[in-house]
Amino acid sequence: MNLPSKLLDDAVNAFAALPGIGKKTALRLVLHLLNREEAEVEEFSETIARMRREIAFCEKCGNIADSRETPLCSICANPGRKHELICVVENLRDLIAIESTGQFSGSYHILGGIISPVDGIGPEDLQLESLIKRVKEDNVSELIMALPPNIEGDTTIFYISRNIDKSKTRITAIARGISFGNDLEYVDEFTLSRSLANRLPYENYLVNK
Amino acid sequence: MNLPSKLLDDAVNAFAALPGIGKKTALRLVLHLLNREEAEVEEFSETIARMRREIAFCEKCGNIADSRETPLCSICANPGRKHELICVVENLRDLIAIESTGQFSGSYHILGGIISPVDGIGPEDLQLESLIKRVKEDNVSELIMALPPNIEGDTTIFYISRNIDKSKTRITAIARGISFGNDLEYVDEFTLSRSLANRLPYENYLVNK
Repeated sequence: MNLPSKLLDDAVNAFAALPGIGKKTALRLVLHLLNREEAEVEEFSETIARMRREIAFCEKCGNIADSRETPLCSICANPGRKHELICVVENLRDLIAIESTGQFSGSYHILGGIISPVDGIGPEDLQLESLIKRVKEDNVSELIMALPPNIEGDTTIFYISRNIDKSKTRITAIARGISFGNDLEYVDEFTLSRSLANRLPYENYLVNK
Repeated sequence: MNLPSKLLDDAVNAFAALPGIGKKTALRLVLHLLNREEAEVEEFSETIARMRREIAFCEKCGNIADSRETPLCSICANPGRKHELICVVENLRDLIAIESTGQFSGSYHILGGIISPVDGIGPEDLQLESLIKRVKEDNVSELIMALPPNIEGDTTIFYISRNIDKSKTRITAIARGISFGNDLEYVDEFTLSRSLANRLPYENYLVNK
């Protein structure tokens, strides 16, 4: 693409450096912004810069916090949440996904990854020490593992389970099985055989129970 | 979506206000930026704001110019371009598309739209007066109409042709016909019959002539 302006070219390249945005999409976004009021574009740009500049990470769970002055995020600081119940997630995206269901009233712990020897990620690279410490200090009664359903996720669950006093803290994992709306014929055999073995009374699956 | 931070929420909404970007994509972009260095994000945001703040429009053709101090864009200011040859386009996007072919060495004129009575766009809403004046003053020898192939485009071409001294300035339009790689069976009848009527010696169509 041959752009008639360096300013335009720079802006297109800035957008095109974002994941999933190609040059043509970037040009469309930039031309859109070029047609907006200058104040509006300043506001857009400042909102992005402010987000990166001011967002802090919660000392307790690793979630994002709105201010660098308070050490806790809005969930950890909320006395209405059940802090003896911790949901363990790989990253912020997964926390947001669970939080968006509106069905969880406990707190979280972000590991910042999962154990993966192939990628050279060991327990010491993750927020595992802080989790184990937190479980002891806060008398956590249940740890819910919401980790990816793969070997690395299972390895991480196994590692955590070995380092937690299971007589004091129950360890559970979110259910695996066929997803709502899935076609049975396209589900892999492993998932299908496991969801057969882990069957539950049908009342558990009625949407409006 | 239930975001755990107002700063994050603001940034997601800023991206989601762009055309073709939904909330989920916006979140992916924001989380990507959150993982980058603060200086890098400041640079991203400043590049966008600078583009909007500093880009000017060429006094002559309406193309964008890199500085508000010079009244001409890089094409109009370039003595190597043929200024007696003007390609008339609807908007900046079309100029960029033609410029990207690398096959045109004349200059441009951006109308800022095309005549469309249905949308209430008349000749006075477009840069038509300035085009007619420019053709006279600069002794333009050929006007190439690169307007959309529809009723509005044709109306605009007709209007321009009525206001130009055709004994001094030749008026042409970019070829219409089947596109390279098109399947003949899917081409509409109107295009197909016109491209039959406007057939050219086959040598004109060899890619490497």
